[in-house]
Amino acid sequence: MVISDVKALTFDVFGTVVDYRGSIIREGERLNQTKGLHVDWAAFADAWRARYRPSLDRVMQGTQPWTNLDSLHRQSLDELLLQFEISDRFTEQEKDHLNRIWHRLLPWPDAIPGLIHLRKRFILATLSNGNIALLVNMAKYSALPWDCILSAELVQAYKPDPRTYQMAINLLGLRSHEVMMVAAHPEDLLAAQSQGMQAAFIPRPLEHGPHNIPDLTPNPAFQIIATDFMDLAQQLGT
Amino acid sequence: MVISDVKALTFDVFGTVVDYRGSIIREGERLNQTKGLHVDWAAFADAWRARYRPSLDRVMQGTQPWTNLDSLHRQSLDELLLQFEISDRFTEQEKDHLNRIWHRLLPWPDAIPGLIHLRKRFILATLSNGNIALLVNMAKYSALPWDCILSAELVQAYKPDPRTYQMAINLLGLRSHEVMMVAAHPEDLLAAQSQGMQAAFIPRPLEHGPHNIPDLTPNPAFQIIATDFMDLAQQLGT
Repeated sequence: MVISDVKALTFDVFGTVVDYRGSIIREGERLNQTKGLHVDWAAFADAWRARYRPSLDRVMQGTQPWTNLDSLHRQSLDELLLQFEISDRFTEQEKDHLNRIWHRLLPWPDAIPGLIHLRKRFILATLSNGNIALLVNMAKYSALPWDCILSAELVQAYKPDPRTYQMAINLLGLRSHEVMMVAAHPEDLLAAQSQGMQAAFIPRPLEHGPHNIPDLTPNPAFQIIATDFMDLAQQLGT
Repeated sequence: MVISDVKALTFDVFGTVVDYRGSIIREGERLNQTKGLHVDWAAFADAWRARYRPSLDRVMQGTQPWTNLDSLHRQSLDELLLQFEISDRFTEQEKDHLNRIWHRLLPWPDAIPGLIHLRKRFILATLSNGNIALLVNMAKYSALPWDCILSAELVQAYKPDPRTYQMAINLLGLRSHEVMMVAAHPEDLLAAQSQGMQAAFIPRPLEHGPHNIPDLTPNPAFQIIATDFMDLAQQLGT
């Protein structure tokens, strides 16, 4: 298994490709202005994301039947709108639009130029817990140049479930070591490696905001550690 | 149900977007030169395609377990190489490369400019019996600007099985009348309409070659009848 075997790159999306926290704050602050709200949208974004893993866990543990990420986000949003005492300030249509903020996330600055370089040599696919419609709409909104949209939705199991990585390998028609997972989250990469895939770690220190820098000590087991997508492209020789 | 409801277009690929017959002839004639063969590649292409529907039917009738299109193409290819008495002129690697000619099909001349216009306003997805890897490789080879690759492989059932159309509607997160099937084949469009989708018929008179023009009388039940993808873009106001 060597890096030159790689034919396709599969990307984690939330946090790795797009800056969900910054995108939610940006759109939320516009809502403060247009609606005369006084919401701390950084706190709102953090609270929304904090419900992400527990909501996936409910599905994976069988407490809740299969539910796609749009619907899980909406469950969390309804709770948060009550908690932040602004639920009555939004119509049903506005709540749906706010929930679809996850379809309008903007990329980290290096993401698009890096992907464009990488796409010359590699197949680029998402491999995200976001549902297909969310990922397609996001790609269209933010001009992300994917060759293929793959989602946990296709196997009705969320990462890091092994079925998600096997699905990507199989649908791309490749051998496991020909596919490299790209993510800012070590647990995602370790799960991919356990299925025979290669791994590229891209730390995103600002994913959780400037006051919550995660431990970014890279695991030496990862085949590539790159500072951003441009560095990844360079290390992969594109 | 009106045309202005449409948010996504799903495309049949073989014959509708790409000219498989011309592409096989073109590559085959190069093989005649490099290998000193005297194969009639138009006859070879027609014979290969003639085995397509029967091979899908074997799977759908349960005579053969689920088999993706690459593997069905390979079964047919092995028979044809014997029938054309050229099987011993190809190594295993060359046979695999020849089978992947379906990953290298070139588009009809109007397809890419038409898709680029259409993509400004609509989500563009494949909805093909080709497997995902085949469709991804073809898109990359022939620069087809899809937003999303959807395939019968995702539900392990071939068109015109209703599950294929339902899969596209559901994964795109849309209502059935918000999705329009685009195809050169009336049976594909009628099956899509039976699932509530809209339909655009694009006759491709040369799909089977200049001596086998199919009956192209359009069914008035189709929402759109367009001469090619540029005309489709114009009729859809893009």
